[in-house]
Amino acid sequence: MTTKTTGADSTATDPRTGDPLTGVAATSVDEAEALISAAAAASSDWAALPRPKRARLLRRVADGLEAKGAAIVAAADTETALGPARLENELRRTTGQLRMFAAEIESGHYLQALVTEADPTAGVPDLRRMRFPRGPVVVFAASNFPLAFSVAGGDTASALAAGCPVVVKAHENHPVTAELVAEVLRRELPDDVFALCHGREAGTALLEHPATTAVGFTGSLQGGVALARICRDRPVPIPFFGELSSLNPVVVMEDAATAYGLRIAQEFAASLTLGNGQFCTKPGLLFVPADGPMRELVADAIGASTTGVLLTASMREHYLDHPGHERLPLLARGQSDPGSPLSVSPEVRFVDSASYDEALPLLIAERFGPAGVVITYTSQADLIAMLKRLPGNLTGSVHSTVGSPDADPKTDLAAAAQVRAVAEVLSKCSGRLIHNGWPTGVAVTLAQHHGGPFPATTDAATTSVGVTAIERWLIPVAYQDWPDSLLPPELQRANPLGVPRREA
Amino acid sequence: MTTKTTGADSTATDPRTGDPLTGVAATSVDEAEALISAAAAASSDWAALPRPKRARLLRRVADGLEAKGAAIVAAADTETALGPARLENELRRTTGQLRMFAAEIESGHYLQALVTEADPTAGVPDLRRMRFPRGPVVVFAASNFPLAFSVAGGDTASALAAGCPVVVKAHENHPVTAELVAEVLRRELPDDVFALCHGREAGTALLEHPATTAVGFTGSLQGGVALARICRDRPVPIPFFGELSSLNPVVVMEDAATAYGLRIAQEFAASLTLGNGQFCTKPGLLFVPADGPMRELVADAIGASTTGVLLTASMREHYLDHPGHERLPLLARGQSDPGSPLSVSPEVRFVDSASYDEALPLLIAERFGPAGVVITYTSQADLIAMLKRLPGNLTGSVHSTVGSPDADPKTDLAAAAQVRAVAEVLSKCSGRLIHNGWPTGVAVTLAQHHGGPFPATTDAATTSVGVTAIERWLIPVAYQDWPDSLLPPELQRANPLGVPRREA
Repeated sequence: MTTKTTGADSTATDPRTGDPLTGVAATSVDEAEALISAAAAASSDWAALPRPKRARLLRRVADGLEAKGAAIVAAADTETALGPARLENELRRTTGQLRMFAAEIESGHYLQALVTEADPTAGVPDLRRMRFPRGPVVVFAASNFPLAFSVAGGDTASALAAGCPVVVKAHENHPVTAELVAEVLRRELPDDVFALCHGREAGTALLEHPATTAVGFTGSLQGGVALARICRDRPVPIPFFGELSSLNPVVVMEDAATAYGLRIAQEFAASLTLGNGQFCTKPGLLFVPADGPMRELVADAIGASTTGVLLTASMREHYLDHPGHERLPLLARGQSDPGSPLSVSPEVRFVDSASYDEALPLLIAERFGPAGVVITYTSQADLIAMLKRLPGNLTGSVHSTVGSPDADPKTDLAAAAQVRAVAEVLSKCSGRLIHNGWPTGVAVTLAQHHGGPFPATTDAATTSVGVTAIERWLIPVAYQDWPDSLLPPELQRANPLGVPRREA
Repeated sequence: MTTKTTGADSTATDPRTGDPLTGVAATSVDEAEALISAAAAASSDWAALPRPKRARLLRRVADGLEAKGAAIVAAADTETALGPARLENELRRTTGQLRMFAAEIESGHYLQALVTEADPTAGVPDLRRMRFPRGPVVVFAASNFPLAFSVAGGDTASALAAGCPVVVKAHENHPVTAELVAEVLRRELPDDVFALCHGREAGTALLEHPATTAVGFTGSLQGGVALARICRDRPVPIPFFGELSSLNPVVVMEDAATAYGLRIAQEFAASLTLGNGQFCTKPGLLFVPADGPMRELVADAIGASTTGVLLTASMREHYLDHPGHERLPLLARGQSDPGSPLSVSPEVRFVDSASYDEALPLLIAERFGPAGVVITYTSQADLIAMLKRLPGNLTGSVHSTVGSPDADPKTDLAAAAQVRAVAEVLSKCSGRLIHNGWPTGVAVTLAQHHGGPFPATTDAATTSVGVTAIERWLIPVAYQDWPDSLLPPELQRANPLGVPRREA
């Protein structure tokens, strides 16, 4: 690991001790503008590179990250205190994503190639359409995934795969990890197709630069809304794909509370405290029946839980001083890590349906860290009414006995109708619906959707995880009556590359 | 046709005489809010209607419009003066669109169903994703297509097909036509799934209403930008899909000028004056070689052209007083219609590459009506440099001999390289590239793309014409480990409805 000078924007500290860490100098606005201009100049060649070649380079980046894995994980652990096991897992996810997008661009599915053959008798011309890369993309790295949502994370991997050069604005809390990862990208990719910069001013300059065509962001609601505004107020507005804030409601149906109450309570505590509660999919709201032991089971499970340190001293302050949280009654508090002076305790507050309306503004403000709220409902109608008032989320979960051997055949139809009604409401405010599971742990696969209505994301039609994350960086162009010899091979009449096409 | 009271917002006049026409009362803000609230209440049932049933209702709307075709065309001709032949053709396009979207939702392609089967050994859950309707949509009708981009036009048809209720804000220049069409939609569709309102205040109230989930718009740059701002500044922002302004550059390569110069000039005049130049795809800029007779051929063709009246007196004023247009030298002026006192003349101005930079700000402001600019280039490099400075467009066209029997085999490779370089630049600023054709006449087909970078549209990833126009009104939801009995049939494991799915 090389030592760099500490720049104005470098605020990296050791989360275990609060001591300042070696930083990286902030990139000047002039330097940032030179990086995005160079990316624009490299844009056509990167877009024109045959898909198999682009795929090979993505795989070489993955190989390079693995070869350097020990150093990367060590640096990330120093800067984030997330621990080697989690970070090794995150590195596997990061390289897996790169290889998944490599396979996707080889398959050609993402091109969404469409063909309408000419019909001169009906006056219909020959039309051939597919999706092309937008151009240079700016990615803002997230703090809570120093690898998988950072320099070589999902936004970068999908944009590079799409054929867009990428300039990443590093997260200020893990700048050295960012540089280590960037070295691999710079080494394996053509010049100027990838660049890294540091510092808030450089980031803003990238958003305002005319060469920038789109932005990927994972972070806070407040930060995301401010950056989105810059993108909209440009002379030529550009799309801002931001993943911002999510409460991830979990509903425990009465039958599930009866059948698996203890297990649900224990799994809730585990999911709430996983990664010290620093996941965008943390189950922040747990709806349980007012009757029965669910509330006490959760209190016990949380009381027995422990957690470590948050990513930064500032996050710890926000967690401890979160506005208004002390106005909700405390249900249970877990243990902090006795070996970590900066550790925080897991904490669950309590709301019943009578106090729900008054509590809602407090519930809606995401509290980053291992904090949650248990909400009791008195009836199905009460539950539905409360769910209808939720803002947009990445996920909504339901625990029920429907479809399981534990289901009582006599009441299963009624139970299914109740779950269906809950799911109908959750589907209006959540991008992913989970049955008898937990929202943490986002599988990186074809059918994943990591999105949701505002404020979960700024564009509910898009996902930042999974194969279709690539769609954000593409726009269609249709060719009308275009000579075969001038068409991209994917659209030529004989389909020489055999890409999937829909024809009509 | 029923007579209505004239409301504050009704400004309909007879374009042939300038006399005021019978109007329709403006909808109050309270009424507009009641309409969108009712649409929201009808939303779940409309979304849940099986696709074949929704398709059948769309076809019944098409049948109903045809049955009432004579009255609709007569009303539209009175209000727009576009003439019965054009309006009958536009009615066919309107009903054809409804039937096309009916077929699309029957096919299920638009659902983009994706399946990832569980892999417990790899910790991968079962994930099943498809696209669902957003909810109530607001459509702003356009002035220049009183049928195909108006009350039952492409935005309405695609949103209804997607499963979204629609409230249309009528265009103030054809309110009676709007009411006639709305009667059919109201009669054939379930209550509150479709509504029509009149007046600017009602339109603004719809955009601000919390139940509105997305907006479709075809109209002016200024109007679209103002409405888009309302959508962005809401507490919960919503997408605004606007088609705004396009110059539609056409490039005549040297070989084409030599081989087909006269025909190109005549076709240009015909395309420029089609529909009195009131198309978003009007070829506003024609790039021709400085050497050779192209400039004079165009001047002759325009001199011989005629045109009729514009849609409104206000459009005529804007055409005649378009800021700065008189600062460009006049190349040719055609004839106005001697039978129409309010007719305007086609007009083409001239710019050479030496004056291009200075003229560019004047060229970029779209002049609605039969006006265009001929721009001469002195070399391929000169041409490319000028094209690179263009803003976003719906279309870009190239005339060349490549791929034709007229091509000289000795020089064809060089000609192809030149066209490829031109197309590369045009593809960065245009949604559709046309070879040896004209941008007017937009085929409503699978592979159509009627979109383009800002200011052509507010979202370059979307189209307002063709099958994929439906994508604007849909957002994905993924189901994780969801019991088969609770899944939408399209995602159930046995795929009982046989929809196209991509599985991995």
